[in-house]
Amino acid sequence: MAIRGVHHIGIAVDDLDTAVLVYGELFGATLEHRETVEEQGVEAASLRAGESRIELLRPLGPETPVGKFLAKRGPGMHHVAFQVDDLGVELRRLRDEGALLIDETPRRGLFGLQVAFVHPEATGGVLAELVCDE
Amino acid sequence: MAIRGVHHIGIAVDDLDTAVLVYGELFGATLEHRETVEEQGVEAASLRAGESRIELLRPLGPETPVGKFLAKRGPGMHHVAFQVDDLGVELRRLRDEGALLIDETPRRGLFGLQVAFVHPEATGGVLAELVCDE
Repeated sequence: MAIRGVHHIGIAVDDLDTAVLVYGELFGATLEHRETVEEQGVEAASLRAGESRIELLRPLGPETPVGKFLAKRGPGMHHVAFQVDDLGVELRRLRDEGALLIDETPRRGLFGLQVAFVHPEATGGVLAELVCDE
Repeated sequence: MAIRGVHHIGIAVDDLDTAVLVYGELFGATLEHRETVEEQGVEAASLRAGESRIELLRPLGPETPVGKFLAKRGPGMHHVAFQVDDLGVELRRLRDEGALLIDETPRRGLFGLQVAFVHPEATGGVLAELVCDE
């Protein structure tokens, strides 16, 4: 298995501007990229916090996945993304192990990265994203 | 601010043995330490996943903090821990900024580390831990 480490932590927020400010003030996190991705129903801000990355996600509407998450659970940690070397290889391996996948094949994620999501049912309640960032 | 990066992601689980196996099988995570901490009401397993660390937390009873979390939200991401260089300095800075803290002073966390928790109210719903791992 080629999990290289945590690529980012995804956090669902109500107010993206405020969240960017708060993570800057509390943890010294700096904005590296901000983008609206209509097809995923989010406006996202990627922040660096030291060597790590935080992805803040504001839903574009209540019927989006992040909108439904917020309505059900409120703001907070939404997913964890693991960096992998070869997304296709890892997805085939997970499928062969019987893990329930949300994405059977890689798709374009935020910021143009190749990503795929593993269903929380497979991981004990954690929405896990695999990211190939190279 | 001296956030060096994410030290670990804390995940609340019902069954620690199963969770250790699942994170090993799915993500190649390897157990580095396992400990019962009565005063915090958890049995914890620290796993390495590439360069990152995952902390699996099983509550010792329903009235513990993690037990209450599980009852309310079910298993899943519980907290994110940030590595800092000087925990006392960071706590004073956060307090001076008016951030709501759970721990005003460092306390002994899992595995003997000095830690302090920041209240989710300060961070937009994320239970954040500061860890000094040196």
